[in-house]
Amino acid sequence: MQNDRIRNLAFQKKVMSEDVAASFIQHADTVGMGGFGPGGSPKALPRAIAARAEKFHQKDEPFTIRLLTGASTSPGLDGVLARAKAISCRLPYQGDIDLRAQANLGEVAYVDTHLSRVAPWARAGFYGKMNVAIIEAALIKEDGGIVATAAIGNAQTWLDLADKVIIEVNSWCPTDLEGVHDIWRGPEGSLPNISSPGQRTGDHLLRVSPDKVVAVVKTNERDLNAIFRSVPDAVAIAGHIIEFFRHEVAYNRLPSVLPPLQSGVGNIANAVMEALADAPFNDLTAYTEVIQDGMLDMVQSGKMRAVSGAALYLSHDRATRINDDFARVKNKLVIRPQEISNNPAIARRLNCIAMNAAIEADIYGNVNSTRVMGSLVQNGIGGSGDFARSALISMFMLPSTAKGGLISSIVPMTSHVDHINQDVQILVTEQGLADLRGLAARQRAKVIIETCAHPDFRPLLRDYYDRAEKAGGDTPHLLGEALSWHKCFVETGTMRQ
Amino acid sequence: MQNDRIRNLAFQKKVMSEDVAASFIQHADTVGMGGFGPGGSPKALPRAIAARAEKFHQKDEPFTIRLLTGASTSPGLDGVLARAKAISCRLPYQGDIDLRAQANLGEVAYVDTHLSRVAPWARAGFYGKMNVAIIEAALIKEDGGIVATAAIGNAQTWLDLADKVIIEVNSWCPTDLEGVHDIWRGPEGSLPNISSPGQRTGDHLLRVSPDKVVAVVKTNERDLNAIFRSVPDAVAIAGHIIEFFRHEVAYNRLPSVLPPLQSGVGNIANAVMEALADAPFNDLTAYTEVIQDGMLDMVQSGKMRAVSGAALYLSHDRATRINDDFARVKNKLVIRPQEISNNPAIARRLNCIAMNAAIEADIYGNVNSTRVMGSLVQNGIGGSGDFARSALISMFMLPSTAKGGLISSIVPMTSHVDHINQDVQILVTEQGLADLRGLAARQRAKVIIETCAHPDFRPLLRDYYDRAEKAGGDTPHLLGEALSWHKCFVETGTMRQ
Repeated sequence: MQNDRIRNLAFQKKVMSEDVAASFIQHADTVGMGGFGPGGSPKALPRAIAARAEKFHQKDEPFTIRLLTGASTSPGLDGVLARAKAISCRLPYQGDIDLRAQANLGEVAYVDTHLSRVAPWARAGFYGKMNVAIIEAALIKEDGGIVATAAIGNAQTWLDLADKVIIEVNSWCPTDLEGVHDIWRGPEGSLPNISSPGQRTGDHLLRVSPDKVVAVVKTNERDLNAIFRSVPDAVAIAGHIIEFFRHEVAYNRLPSVLPPLQSGVGNIANAVMEALADAPFNDLTAYTEVIQDGMLDMVQSGKMRAVSGAALYLSHDRATRINDDFARVKNKLVIRPQEISNNPAIARRLNCIAMNAAIEADIYGNVNSTRVMGSLVQNGIGGSGDFARSALISMFMLPSTAKGGLISSIVPMTSHVDHINQDVQILVTEQGLADLRGLAARQRAKVIIETCAHPDFRPLLRDYYDRAEKAGGDTPHLLGEALSWHKCFVETGTMRQ
Repeated sequence: MQNDRIRNLAFQKKVMSEDVAASFIQHADTVGMGGFGPGGSPKALPRAIAARAEKFHQKDEPFTIRLLTGASTSPGLDGVLARAKAISCRLPYQGDIDLRAQANLGEVAYVDTHLSRVAPWARAGFYGKMNVAIIEAALIKEDGGIVATAAIGNAQTWLDLADKVIIEVNSWCPTDLEGVHDIWRGPEGSLPNISSPGQRTGDHLLRVSPDKVVAVVKTNERDLNAIFRSVPDAVAIAGHIIEFFRHEVAYNRLPSVLPPLQSGVGNIANAVMEALADAPFNDLTAYTEVIQDGMLDMVQSGKMRAVSGAALYLSHDRATRINDDFARVKNKLVIRPQEISNNPAIARRLNCIAMNAAIEADIYGNVNSTRVMGSLVQNGIGGSGDFARSALISMFMLPSTAKGGLISSIVPMTSHVDHINQDVQILVTEQGLADLRGLAARQRAKVIIETCAHPDFRPLLRDYYDRAEKAGGDTPHLLGEALSWHKCFVETGTMRQ
């Protein structure tokens, strides 16, 4: 039965247990793992490598790997390896509670990188040699072609670059996934001529030379999918965005069939998708990083014509349901390498509308989406920078306060910058939507304070801005106070002075 | 003789003085002017509009325009209009001493914008209606096609969008300019398939409907070209960069024929070009924003195979000399619309090496290239963001100190961020070159302090970093001190505490 999934003899001969397979990984190796979010993350090898690391550590011998992936992974990958102290360097993104703590302690060197750049830079040799690639598959075909699971991410590049390859064949994933993927390969620097999100331009199978495959491991295990909640602020933010779209269409600045949408992951992004499902827009498309519940719902209901991403990023229930429906929806669903799904050139060509989440924004529209109080990494920049600079309209969304109102998310100066004001055309909180297009910095400050900030913090923001304005500059700041709100929070637990 | 330059009857009929032509511009108009840097900037109309504004102001009547250009212009454009208080809003870039002062006083709303985005966003209606376009020409052909002068910038888009068009025909510019330009036009979002910098893909003439042309004004006036100086720090920086290129070629991370170069403007950029002229690299190409002296020298000497930009940006002497040589070099020289010259998708496709100047950088590699002490705009982001995020390797260059050593250009935290650390792979000062590829934030801090900072400031930077590290975070900062160096300079005139 399981050999139904491994139809090539060369691969069948390499079947072994994960514990034996893990012995191919040595201390200090650079390991590229497939997956992007929980989808497509290897499952057996991370556990086996963690166990191997612990054995070394018990003997007081070093054992860590440099771990490159697509994006974040799952608790079963980053979490398991982090708790075994098995990661020395991590690239390009993470979202795991244990790994994050190690990055913030400086125990793991976390290299926060634009997701579209990882594969080309790896091929250019900027990250050194790759020793082992570990990839999840739904099926290995007769000719050795590999049907991936719920993500492509950087899988093909890892297969190309690594000296040794290990494949996990996961029989929980339906073989109907065949045909969902589109793995474009061309000369370095060239791009597929994608003119609509649903367009296919490449091979639907991952390819690897069987000579490099050192192990094939059988698994039957579902992804550790995410849980999303409906939150009131998110619904209000989504409402402002729908209203903005209606307004732009009315003024002929957007076509009535909206351009392809890019959307980050999370509660706010989910609320926007739910609001779109009920809004008077049809023939929607998405050219995005990860394909979420709301997008799949709209694909299945016919509201969304096509969706392209590097991975599925679904809730537990949604992942179970889609398993039975791939055959029906796969002509509207394309999973690509992240250098294509997130390619700024294609996002620009398609005139995407980018919608990403922020931790805080300043009065001039600069956005911090990664570092809490300037120092502590939360997740990472991910693909937000790939899209924000290339979209027709780049929107950032955040609740106006955090920590039950103790933190104002609109601050005099952000404590870290991920997105410069030039890449933020629209800023939205539950309070309102600020349209920053064509505004100078001083104009932006007034609009952001009066539209986006929480009313409790507006007087303090006005006071800061008014005094800064008197001191001068096209982007007036008071250097002794610019970060004082953050400092106050760190010292007293509240920004309410 | 002058009618040799205006070969179409419809245009000949519109010839008039600049003072009469200026009456087509009304208070509160949005005016798009050609040019990009001094090259191609209109000359007669700015003076005439300034005089018109002053007449209104003498009667206590308002007269200002919203001024959109390609990039910076010349003292004869921005300077003349600024001194007449004739500008209310300025987009997308400036570099004029008088205009800058007004922006910093809040008298002019300066909208600092990525240069490649201006034309598409204008066409999308984000900047409102354009009333008048004013463009410089070397020649108007029999069929009404227009030979531009030393720049394209956004000229074609302004001609397309404006209700009224005024053309200055400048007989100082040689008619041999015909054929230098390449004005690609295609469906919105599409791009020419440029696979090498010298490739031509469009029309060599600007096009406009003669019905929209309300005035043609004759001029005979040279551009107010820039002056560059050779400075010792610039030579040291250039030396480090050449050494880096040699090293990357030796390690096969760069091909021996270097990828197309992008280079900003200024003393450091010029020094790099001079160093390249003597370095063991041949068949150089440039896909860049403005074409400088050093690039033209290499084109003429045969060292550079082809160069593409939105404009010539030359010294006074170089501009005079090239005037006699266009016929010979124009097969190696392409002047394009800035949405093409600066297009991130093309820069990425060509794997450009981006080299841009910075005002300051922080210990984590974030770069401020626009705001002095956080508040005061110097010039603007220009095209640096178009290239830095899309280049194969993005380099930022700056002297390690400023103001005779009173300012450290390497600081704990930049007072403004234009380029996030993810877009800075290489940071160079006269002290040395920091290769930041694949490094986590804490690793970057150590390399930048020990390699790029001035030795006088290293102990203070180490002290800041060490104490911040103890406080924790993957990007450790002390919020009460992060901007204290700037504050100290503003209050005491020195960062040396």
